[in-house]
Amino acid sequence: MKVLFSTTNKHKIAEANETGKIYGIEFEQINFPYPETRDEKFENIACEGVRYVYEKVNKQVIVEDSGIIIDALNGFPGTFSAYAQKKLGNKGILNLMRDVEERNRTGKYISVVAFFDGKILKTFVGTVDGKISTRERGSSGFGYDPIFIPLGYAQTFGENPEPKKEISHRRKSVEAFCKFYVKYNEGVK
Amino acid sequence: MKVLFSTTNKHKIAEANETGKIYGIEFEQINFPYPETRDEKFENIACEGVRYVYEKVNKQVIVEDSGIIIDALNGFPGTFSAYAQKKLGNKGILNLMRDVEERNRTGKYISVVAFFDGKILKTFVGTVDGKISTRERGSSGFGYDPIFIPLGYAQTFGENPEPKKEISHRRKSVEAFCKFYVKYNEGVK
Repeated sequence: MKVLFSTTNKHKIAEANETGKIYGIEFEQINFPYPETRDEKFENIACEGVRYVYEKVNKQVIVEDSGIIIDALNGFPGTFSAYAQKKLGNKGILNLMRDVEERNRTGKYISVVAFFDGKILKTFVGTVDGKISTRERGSSGFGYDPIFIPLGYAQTFGENPEPKKEISHRRKSVEAFCKFYVKYNEGVK
Repeated sequence: MKVLFSTTNKHKIAEANETGKIYGIEFEQINFPYPETRDEKFENIACEGVRYVYEKVNKQVIVEDSGIIIDALNGFPGTFSAYAQKKLGNKGILNLMRDVEERNRTGKYISVVAFFDGKILKTFVGTVDGKISTRERGSSGFGYDPIFIPLGYAQTFGENPEPKKEISHRRKSVEAFCKFYVKYNEGVK
């Protein structure tokens, strides 16, 4: 089964297909950038995005919005994670947190997949708790991976991307979507 | 002459009226928060905002969008200045710039007033160049004023708000609007 996934980010497609193949789903990238509002809820941005893309392609489609919420920064960068990464980079985040003690360096990655077929609009949320490292470590993955240490691990996602396949926010949201979609597709047939 | 000014920020009204009184214009606050896009151009946000508010009130109206562009931070926080102030505060900005040398601490405040009467859409831009201080100084004004030293001065806008009346970004954008509006109003009569 092919599922259209609108994103400008090839990494997301690759990660999604790691999960999709378990469920017999192949995600196919299409690129319809959608206007993002300043909403601070990932669900809202994903829902508005998937409706926008659906109107363009008139086919069932998913989008995914994700980011990192850092507790010591009042939730920053949250839904502005891509923008903050572009402007400030991981070095900027580390500078912002230079005075933050180890025990307060908590945060989480969030991923929300939104699906729309013209009638049914559904969202699937995945999160992974962790800590922000004190320096960039490793170069695997993308975005905040080199400064994100998932709970229960010693290495950042940048040093060791293996756990992402099992415990990442995107793994969880995509898997939740896949489970839904397998049933949905049976219902459609 | 009264001019409707849609903003949630009373400080902006007070500042605008300092300028407006010179031109016989009184700015009256109305509060119609408009959805801001993630556009990185102040002009676009102001234009979209004033069109939105006009549709709500069906009367000629202005909005103002402003922020600070910091060169060493790739233009951050720019059109996200209010959000960054809320999440990170001036301490956050100072942390981001902790390693930035004096000569590279340049930035500017920008203000864009947008006017719409249902037909004519006009924008008025004001800027003030300056530097980002190394610590918060003074408590006058609001936003980034305690860390912004206008070019040619030694004190921040937070320490000495007097220069704002003459050289601030908002002074300039509002004055440009006032000059336009006096003529516009003569034409309408």
